[in-house]
Amino acid sequence: MRSSDFLTDIVIGMSDGLTVPFALAAGLSGAVASNSIIVIAGIAEIAAGSIAMGLGGYLAGKTELDHYNTELKREYDEVEKIPEKEKEEVKVFFANIGLSKDMQEKAAEEISKDKKQWVDFMMKYELGLDKPDPKRATKSALNIGLSYAAGGLVPLSPYFFTDTPVQALKISVVLTLLCLFIFGFFKSRITGINPWLGALRVTLIGAVAAGAAFGVAKLFEA
Amino acid sequence: MRSSDFLTDIVIGMSDGLTVPFALAAGLSGAVASNSIIVIAGIAEIAAGSIAMGLGGYLAGKTELDHYNTELKREYDEVEKIPEKEKEEVKVFFANIGLSKDMQEKAAEEISKDKKQWVDFMMKYELGLDKPDPKRATKSALNIGLSYAAGGLVPLSPYFFTDTPVQALKISVVLTLLCLFIFGFFKSRITGINPWLGALRVTLIGAVAAGAAFGVAKLFEA
Repeated sequence: MRSSDFLTDIVIGMSDGLTVPFALAAGLSGAVASNSIIVIAGIAEIAAGSIAMGLGGYLAGKTELDHYNTELKREYDEVEKIPEKEKEEVKVFFANIGLSKDMQEKAAEEISKDKKQWVDFMMKYELGLDKPDPKRATKSALNIGLSYAAGGLVPLSPYFFTDTPVQALKISVVLTLLCLFIFGFFKSRITGINPWLGALRVTLIGAVAAGAAFGVAKLFEA
Repeated sequence: MRSSDFLTDIVIGMSDGLTVPFALAAGLSGAVASNSIIVIAGIAEIAAGSIAMGLGGYLAGKTELDHYNTELKREYDEVEKIPEKEKEEVKVFFANIGLSKDMQEKAAEEISKDKKQWVDFMMKYELGLDKPDPKRATKSALNIGLSYAAGGLVPLSPYFFTDTPVQALKISVVLTLLCLFIFGFFKSRITGINPWLGALRVTLIGAVAAGAAFGVAKLFEA
């Protein structure tokens, strides 16, 4: 499970990192004459995007953990202070899934015999909260941020080694669409959908975003 | 609920739209001398980002719906063809939440009396899948994409009306941090965390991303 979480972060960060910097570079290629401006814009976007994704993900993870702990404390309090009301909520759950009146009573009695078991049940099935891994947020943020940066360098790399944006764009398009296809394939396998269809979708999003950015930038050409 | 979903999309799209184009424009302001290049890069980024977010969100929603329907069909099949194995899975659920052997049997019998109720139970508690709203994906994609674009125009707008990037950047920083704070506040209220703390976090991410983009772009200055 841990290696699959790691893989998910990498693939998500990288496929997003491939898309937006690619579209930005493509868009600028239609509107400016110098590679160095595209490199600067690309590097700035990669820095911005990876920090926004990484730090955003970290804070979201921390928020989720805070939220879980607050609710956990509250459930322990409620089980202590208003056990009858809490038992009623357990019964409502069993009523909703279709158990008979008699069974609702008995099941609620059994669940509430053990306080930890009772609170775990309330957290998961009344509130729909799974216990978050406290170390996951940091690792995940780092993985996603770095993968975004690594992904972003793919579409940008041809602009380092060519003389004009048009030359670079041709290499960038081939290279990036190929990478998007490969990452779309693995991303789809991880999320359990048809990998060929998924790869096509991811590639298509990249191509449409790049095409639109190219068109729009051309309208505002310097 | 529907108006709150709408609000969530708007706030998410807009606070992301404020962050990345802001950082890109700030980064370029430290490295290029002309407003028009920043405007073109910003517009290209906004087009790329809103399409990537919008279309990405739409396809994710469609994938989720496909996945749900495939699993639903499979559960109906399994309940029909291998009812004993499926009943065993219901028992495992009740064992995990802490019911006694005897209660596991009885509860599984009651759940499996009605096929729709049985399948709904398996979908939700064996597979952890909630029925997705089929129209939600399209609406959500549109709302997020457009809000991203609207958010992105805030940090970019000063570059339309000023003569140099440095002038524009000053107005952009004040305007965008203010908007990030306001949107962070509402975003936090929606997700149920302390709104002042949340507003501060969102503003901080924007400021750090913009600062990093500025610093990195300066290193690669044309």
